[in-house]
Amino acid sequence: MDESQAPYYSQRIEHVLDACLPGADTSPARLHEAMRYAVLAPGKRVRPRLVYAAADVLGVPWVRVDGAAAAIECVHAYSLIHDDLPAMDDDNLRRGRPTTHIAFDEATAILAGDALQALAFEIVATHGGLNDAPAARAAQIATLAHAVGSRGMVGGQVLDMGAEGRDDVTTEDLEEIHNLKTGALLAACVTMAADAAESLSADQRAALDIFATRIGLAFQVRDDVLDIESSTEKLGKIQGADVAHDKATYPALMGLDEAKAFAQRLYTEATAALDMFENAEPLRAIAREIVQRDH
Amino acid sequence: MDESQAPYYSQRIEHVLDACLPGADTSPARLHEAMRYAVLAPGKRVRPRLVYAAADVLGVPWVRVDGAAAAIECVHAYSLIHDDLPAMDDDNLRRGRPTTHIAFDEATAILAGDALQALAFEIVATHGGLNDAPAARAAQIATLAHAVGSRGMVGGQVLDMGAEGRDDVTTEDLEEIHNLKTGALLAACVTMAADAAESLSADQRAALDIFATRIGLAFQVRDDVLDIESSTEKLGKIQGADVAHDKATYPALMGLDEAKAFAQRLYTEATAALDMFENAEPLRAIAREIVQRDH
Repeated sequence: MDESQAPYYSQRIEHVLDACLPGADTSPARLHEAMRYAVLAPGKRVRPRLVYAAADVLGVPWVRVDGAAAAIECVHAYSLIHDDLPAMDDDNLRRGRPTTHIAFDEATAILAGDALQALAFEIVATHGGLNDAPAARAAQIATLAHAVGSRGMVGGQVLDMGAEGRDDVTTEDLEEIHNLKTGALLAACVTMAADAAESLSADQRAALDIFATRIGLAFQVRDDVLDIESSTEKLGKIQGADVAHDKATYPALMGLDEAKAFAQRLYTEATAALDMFENAEPLRAIAREIVQRDH
Repeated sequence: MDESQAPYYSQRIEHVLDACLPGADTSPARLHEAMRYAVLAPGKRVRPRLVYAAADVLGVPWVRVDGAAAAIECVHAYSLIHDDLPAMDDDNLRRGRPTTHIAFDEATAILAGDALQALAFEIVATHGGLNDAPAARAAQIATLAHAVGSRGMVGGQVLDMGAEGRDDVTTEDLEEIHNLKTGALLAACVTMAADAAESLSADQRAALDIFATRIGLAFQVRDDVLDIESSTEKLGKIQGADVAHDKATYPALMGLDEAKAFAQRLYTEATAALDMFENAEPLRAIAREIVQRDH
């Protein structure tokens, strides 16, 4: 772990998120309450920390990625709200607390998710750190929009639902699902930091892409493993939910041990891609955390 | 009506929308089908035509607002999909066809709406007409994001739901609801064209704001009137739905005749604000259409 900076990522993002979200007393109060409930829930903040880590590796000042970090966490929170809805995964528990449609109501949950997506783009479009760099700002917005749209996160969710209950899902199918559903947004964390960098070679961009996609997939494989191995208490969501939903998972397709070995291989490939950067330790540290986490 | 240009607005937007939306055979096909079903439904295209009309009045080339026009129509379509959901207005008919969650399913409808919002921002962030103007692009995105978020369209929807069944709704409450729910996006049509203009005086901006807010409210008052006066066949949605949902409306609060007079007053104020522009006929024509339309 980069001792000098990494511990501060979490403090930074909590502060930035709190400042970017409208106050719970701003009208409509119930909507803003729901948005804050979902975003400010205790969480690991892997995505924003990945943004700051990439910025540190690329020598980009934090202020140029504050908007990206906050926007990605808002999008992540909105996607969880909508995934948990009765018409989707119908989950009641998330991060150890009632899901947003349980704590509020279904209509408010749908609208809080919608508003969080809009807020994400508003944050990137207006945060002060990029006032002198409209092209970088536009690039970040393009990266985020593509990553969360029909050929990214939302597309992955649709493919995931379509795979439920099917017994002919291959590892290639699963990889496509997860590359879109989880990987695209994780990759965007790194790419949005790169978008804010003054200059970056094509080789450096390619290396970051390899790191981001491998670590995105490793994150999901680890998630699948934890769904089997960890407890509901540690996960903060129902353990075994994937099996209950008859979802295709890596352990189900390749066995538990092979799934663990696969995550390890992805980690090795991801971190090897970072060799060309002078100090890549902030990104390596998050990669380690992703494959070793127990919740 | 500006004979030389206005008839072409509709052709232009159909072409741009078709080009911006992923093909129905692009994976995930069912998601893209649902997105195209919702956006390419026969519609009046009032919002994109307002964008092009504002561009004509301000001397902005169409290519610089193509993205704005398409994005606003995508956002409008997404908002209709989500408004019609069972947890919201629970409508089965829209523009004379089954609503998206009826034609597909609820999960697909939620996700198609989510993906359309992302696509809207992707379009503005990437369309070629603003490649030389990243600051204008960022300004358009900020305008759109604010207009559709928790202090814009989504906020208005929340306030609207909160007012259902209440008997103490005032005309001031109703004006706030509609300024947010409908007015904010209509105003964004004009503002996004202004964002793309080379230079604009503060007076011109202020005049456009007055035009946009008045015409946005007039649109909604006319909608309320039509809900009572028109037929289900003409409207393409269930006539009398507002009354059935016990929604506060202008006719309910001020009487039918006074509501009509109010729409006429708003129209007069809106068009008066355009006097400072040399040729404001394209915007005047759409304003006339809004207060005179019968569906």
